[in-house]
Amino acid sequence: MSIELDLVPSGLVRAVEELPLVDHHVHGATGRDLSRTAFEELITESDRPVPPWMTQFDSQVGYAILRHCAPVLGLDPHCTPEEYLARRARLGAYEVNRLLLGAGGVAHFLVETGHRGEELLGPSGMAEVSGVPADEVVRLEAVAEQVASAGCEARAFAGRFAEALWERTRTARGLKSIAAYRCGLDFDPSPPTGAEVEEAAGRWLDSGVRRLDDPVLLRHLIWTGIERGLPLQFHAGFGDPDADLRRADPLLLRGLIELAEPSGVPLVLLHCYPYQRQAGFLAHAYPNVYFDVGLGVNFTGARSVALVAESLEVAPFAKVLFSSDAWGPAELHHLGAVLWRRAMVRVLGSFVAEGDWSVEQAVRVASLVGADNARRVYELGPARWGVGTVGAPE
Amino acid sequence: MSIELDLVPSGLVRAVEELPLVDHHVHGATGRDLSRTAFEELITESDRPVPPWMTQFDSQVGYAILRHCAPVLGLDPHCTPEEYLARRARLGAYEVNRLLLGAGGVAHFLVETGHRGEELLGPSGMAEVSGVPADEVVRLEAVAEQVASAGCEARAFAGRFAEALWERTRTARGLKSIAAYRCGLDFDPSPPTGAEVEEAAGRWLDSGVRRLDDPVLLRHLIWTGIERGLPLQFHAGFGDPDADLRRADPLLLRGLIELAEPSGVPLVLLHCYPYQRQAGFLAHAYPNVYFDVGLGVNFTGARSVALVAESLEVAPFAKVLFSSDAWGPAELHHLGAVLWRRAMVRVLGSFVAEGDWSVEQAVRVASLVGADNARRVYELGPARWGVGTVGAPE
Amino acid sequence: MSIELDLVPSGLVRAVEELPLVDHHVHGATGRDLSRTAFEELITESDRPVPPWMTQFDSQVGYAILRHCAPVLGLDPHCTPEEYLARRARLGAYEVNRLLLGAGGVAHFLVETGHRGEELLGPSGMAEVSGVPADEVVRLEAVAEQVASAGCEARAFAGRFAEALWERTRTARGLKSIAAYRCGLDFDPSPPTGAEVEEAAGRWLDSGVRRLDDPVLLRHLIWTGIERGLPLQFHAGFGDPDADLRRADPLLLRGLIELAEPSGVPLVLLHCYPYQRQAGFLAHAYPNVYFDVGLGVNFTGARSVALVAESLEVAPFAKVLFSSDAWGPAELHHLGAVLWRRAMVRVLGSFVAEGDWSVEQAVRVASLVGADNARRVYELGPARWGVGTVGAPE
Repeated sequence: MSIELDLVPSGLVRAVEELPLVDHHVHGATGRDLSRTAFEELITESDRPVPPWMTQFDSQVGYAILRHCAPVLGLDPHCTPEEYLARRARLGAYEVNRLLLGAGGVAHFLVETGHRGEELLGPSGMAEVSGVPADEVVRLEAVAEQVASAGCEARAFAGRFAEALWERTRTARGLKSIAAYRCGLDFDPSPPTGAEVEEAAGRWLDSGVRRLDDPVLLRHLIWTGIERGLPLQFHAGFGDPDADLRRADPLLLRGLIELAEPSGVPLVLLHCYPYQRQAGFLAHAYPNVYFDVGLGVNFTGARSVALVAESLEVAPFAKVLFSSDAWGPAELHHLGAVLWRRAMVRVLGSFVAEGDWSVEQAVRVASLVGADNARRVYELGPARWGVGTVGAPE
Repeated sequence: MSIELDLVPSGLVRAVEELPLVDHHVHGATGRDLSRTAFEELITESDRPVPPWMTQFDSQVGYAILRHCAPVLGLDPHCTPEEYLARRARLGAYEVNRLLLGAGGVAHFLVETGHRGEELLGPSGMAEVSGVPADEVVRLEAVAEQVASAGCEARAFAGRFAEALWERTRTARGLKSIAAYRCGLDFDPSPPTGAEVEEAAGRWLDSGVRRLDDPVLLRHLIWTGIERGLPLQFHAGFGDPDADLRRADPLLLRGLIELAEPSGVPLVLLHCYPYQRQAGFLAHAYPNVYFDVGLGVNFTGARSVALVAESLEVAPFAKVLFSSDAWGPAELHHLGAVLWRRAMVRVLGSFVAEGDWSVEQAVRVASLVGADNARRVYELGPARWGVGTVGAPE
Repeated sequence: MSIELDLVPSGLVRAVEELPLVDHHVHGATGRDLSRTAFEELITESDRPVPPWMTQFDSQVGYAILRHCAPVLGLDPHCTPEEYLARRARLGAYEVNRLLLGAGGVAHFLVETGHRGEELLGPSGMAEVSGVPADEVVRLEAVAEQVASAGCEARAFAGRFAEALWERTRTARGLKSIAAYRCGLDFDPSPPTGAEVEEAAGRWLDSGVRRLDDPVLLRHLIWTGIERGLPLQFHAGFGDPDADLRRADPLLLRGLIELAEPSGVPLVLLHCYPYQRQAGFLAHAYPNVYFDVGLGVNFTGARSVALVAESLEVAPFAKVLFSSDAWGPAELHHLGAVLWRRAMVRVLGSFVAEGDWSVEQAVRVASLVGADNARRVYELGPARWGVGTVGAPE
């Protein structure tokens, strides 16, 4: 996948590098300083301790950090992990976040707050550090678990959840389901009946277990989310070991996609790796389906070019989105943007260099995927230029 | 996947560009003039209306049309959709077909007539417009549905279907099953008993629904097709939303492949995207299995190089075929050929440029996949040179 | 996937080419002279006769033999199959083995002896011909079948198997399960009870069929293997038609991986094609999982660059191994090494040429995957330099 970069028109390179991105699925950066152990445990999707005979720096994402984040912190590319972490510690979390969140050229963050959000910067914190707008995406399961924690009877659950969801999403831009983690995507796609929901709620609330993994309730959350009417994101594909990757194949959502189609609610498939071609098929077949290859881009590093290329196959270009899915270290936020730009330059650049596409087509697709599609789907309006945004008008 | 085209020996480029192709799975071109809406709805596998906020031209196949078909109609590459459609309308459907069907250098079409064939040119129409031979491939389900439409009792169904199939296929070169669309490929592979067929036929005929989706009857059609003895094509992988892509994985045909192996009937897996590597494995393992990556080549456009490359992995080269699976606009017929040639030059050219293959090996594989394998499998005899064939002897 | 090889630093090329490999999963070379028919039947995973209308030389592995093995036997690259086989016959099997096993630069073989091992060189024969150490990997099913052949009552089976396993593995480096071939990887992952094992053993021993395909017993073998404590290899993905490729998806092992995690036993997923990205995910998520893309590398030939590239995505580099999975003709042993080196130079070289990785990082990853990871997992100690080892200190 090597291309002669000097064959890529400089206008295309500049347009992609200066594009003010919308990161439509991201989590907050951590405000804490991190030990080496903590840092290594945050640059993997594994939830296991790092074995003593290896380092997570020996990975695509590790090498990408040393290549692309080190210069942002004032170091040479390809420095050692020790040099990197020493500089990081010296600068402190606030300055690291400020530098890395600013350098990526993201013009708008949609921050999903449902996973250990209390440890991270929230939307307002992200906006403050980055200098650009940050809105919220609300995780359905987190709302349901809060309803349960607050105390609720089974027969009141459906009503209380609907109320809480409306309350929590007054200013939100989207919703998210992690059914892939909790029961797999091979669930019965139809909305459960009220009686089924009450019965399942009773079992769950009586169990004393806060984590919600009952398929009936997870379906109920999804259908309540569809009624809410905001774009609905689904975790699919790559993630932590909590998910069975076979049951996270986005094709399993076909039944739900067809049932939800009349609602007009956009369904946005997140990550998808290694099922990005399957996701592209769904985006091709169904008007209500969108997808991204976030998370996978970060964790495939130098190989993310191949992943981005595979995301530009059968899906219409109005249906593909950019995201980082960063969580925690701001390195992941920065890499999401920088690796995506790098991959787009290479992939689109090769189409142009080989005479298949015009420069204008390439710039158009970069703009659609990097920003315009998300602005349309989430109704964000045109870009507001903020501090630290790359490519802002002078 | 960029290669220095000047590193590819010109002899290889010429051999691939002049190869008289056999398009072993194609549908007729449309003889109608097309509005923009109609055209956009025919350059996607989706059967949904195109949403107002997008155009199907913003896709790989759209950009490929503007790149590769525009010059055939006398326009510059990368013209606008408006320019393209205006020129197309001015020329009229007959001239568009004549130009585009002629320019691809296909020397023999095998035309599958079972999907809305009445709206399209049939084999004789395709032969007339293109100036090269066109034979028929008969869709099993279409024959069965005609038997039902003509009126038939359940106990007579098996006999009537067999008669009709022989009658309809007197000069046909092959058969096709669309079980992938009707029940998924995860059907019981064994031939149903006569009693099972009669019972299922009774249910179907009494239902008044013409569309045949009963798995017992679909299996019966397949086994009657195997008795007929012509090469039997199977839809697999990519297609319209009618199919559940998960249940169109060609690996699901393993049981049938093994049961059918003693018959010696070639089983030809069509399209296969994104399961082309799985199809390659089946063609590697079983002597009676062939496959192509048609349809996917058109819809991946500039990315079809990757798809063709993945089709040249574990399958012996005697088991891979070329097809366009074009249906409707003759742009799709042209692109099938031109994108395949372009991809083969790049893929085989990189093998040669890097010293892995000889030029002779590359030319041999292009010839096997592009024509010779299909001539052998469908018993077409050597190429007859017709009007409009690229590379005909002078 | 073409790269300008002159852009790859010569230090990286040299380091990869001279790396003393550990082939952690290989079978013996055949000591017999081979007719053309016999040779062609050994350069495919298909167990069917080669059809008369094709030759297995028209395949990626066939062209790779003519490219990379011909020069080792003193012929020009890209010679004809006839020239190649004539030279091979003239040299004789012993000399062919000596040349091809020596030329690959493998410094240590781990030889799996359970598949028709009596027709092949064993570990000592491999060590003698190659001049480097060769240790054994023991196939669980072969030991169980030997226990059954020797005569055994059902209630004694578990004890006799455990004894035989310890006896057979006194000096072995690892174990292997071929449950993928015998029952698919979608088995119940939990250890069966003693009563279940006794009952299943009774059924099997009474059946008179030697081939063990009972899922209860196959699970019992695996759990006895885990108790034994040696690294445990699993066939996954690509192989002969005996396996249903869908049921060889390594993701199916998730349950077993989680149950086995506390034991600390390394689980090594072999081959994996076309599920190498799925295997990479498992190696990312679980500390006890490793994988390789052996076998697929040989059978994808010039395309193995893509396969190796896909193996270097989400898995930490400490979790990826090299193997050839060669069986029979020593061409397969040689190709395993030469194609892997060629692919690593191209893949890592493109990372370096594009500025993503440093040369030091590339050399480090080649060393981890090619040798160091296997030495750590199988406790082989540092390389002992033997006759014929490329890159030995002078």
